[in-house]
Amino acid sequence: MARPRDPAREAERKAAILAAAASVFAAHGLKGAPIAAICRAAGISAGHLYYYFPSKESLIEAMAAADLAAIRAFAEGLETIDELLDAAVATADPAATGGPAKMLAGPLAFDLLAEAQRNPRVRAALAAHYAAVARIFGARLAAAQAAGQVAAAHDPERLARLVGAVREGLLVMAAIDGGMVDATMRAQVRTMLDRAARGG
Amino acid sequence: MARPRDPAREAERKAAILAAAASVFAAHGLKGAPIAAICRAAGISAGHLYYYFPSKESLIEAMAAADLAAIRAFAEGLETIDELLDAAVATADPAATGGPAKMLAGPLAFDLLAEAQRNPRVRAALAAHYAAVARIFGARLAAAQAAGQVAAAHDPERLARLVGAVREGLLVMAAIDGGMVDATMRAQVRTMLDRAARGG
Repeated sequence: MARPRDPAREAERKAAILAAAASVFAAHGLKGAPIAAICRAAGISAGHLYYYFPSKESLIEAMAAADLAAIRAFAEGLETIDELLDAAVATADPAATGGPAKMLAGPLAFDLLAEAQRNPRVRAALAAHYAAVARIFGARLAAAQAAGQVAAAHDPERLARLVGAVREGLLVMAAIDGGMVDATMRAQVRTMLDRAARGG
Repeated sequence: MARPRDPAREAERKAAILAAAASVFAAHGLKGAPIAAICRAAGISAGHLYYYFPSKESLIEAMAAADLAAIRAFAEGLETIDELLDAAVATADPAATGGPAKMLAGPLAFDLLAEAQRNPRVRAALAAHYAAVARIFGARLAAAQAAGQVAAAHDPERLARLVGAVREGLLVMAAIDGGMVDATMRAQVRTMLDRAARGG
């Protein structure tokens, strides 16, 4: 007879599996990561992992959903254009804390970008994820615009994509050479984004 | 008896091997690319490949060197701040032509960024490559500054890194969703960089 399901315990176990998968993917790469290593890191059997996540794709999808929930909660706390732009620039600061904990970050994020160029399904999933993130920050920028902090000419979601692009660029630079994205560069980028947001 | 070496023929053969390697790496990934597929694409034996390039690392190094030479030649033709910023923004335009042909681009560039997070030697090589690119464009921006087109307060090489970061961000966005980096976004970014360069 099957054991009765315990939703709270299942959610906890799923979160533990995702955290284990994130660290194994980061260490071994998206394709190279052995499922056995994920099971070992999560302390479960292969059958158990399969019960929750039948494929690597389903693991990545669940990690993306967890990231989106964390980003949504984080964005809710950003009230003004200053807070929004500070957060965008702080991502590439190795000393920064307080951003949303992300699983699709670091080496795995670059693995996914590479895979997106080879696999149209991965690219579509990544595009949908990014569009959802742009909607979240677009809504916050719309609120800042309603408060007179963003030029009226801006489409808030487009501005969110522009800020997001610059943020991605800082993450690439930090991945190449952490010392490159220093306080001076972050301040320059911060000024540049501020002028773009307020100046239209 | 060994055949006498023909430098022109060797250079031609090396270039053909690098082009073959770039397309195989792009299709299969940095780690997944089979050496046999590179030989097949270049129409040579494994022994021949080994004679020119004894490892994947030596292939990547030679591709980086070829890219740097192409970037240097391309940058030489950019005279004004307008030409420099146009070129930075055009990279992410799928319809753009005239940029330097790059081998470490597309999926391979993201593979290398991921690998750089796992392998300090790859990271150091990538950082050195990027520093060389920044010096090339820094020299062009210094010339534009001497002509009064860039604010005197700028350190030209720092400005080159700032523009480079924004360019990398556009490439990430284009890799996620080509439609995202449309003419409107490119124009916004162009204006933003122009203000940063002229405004200090």
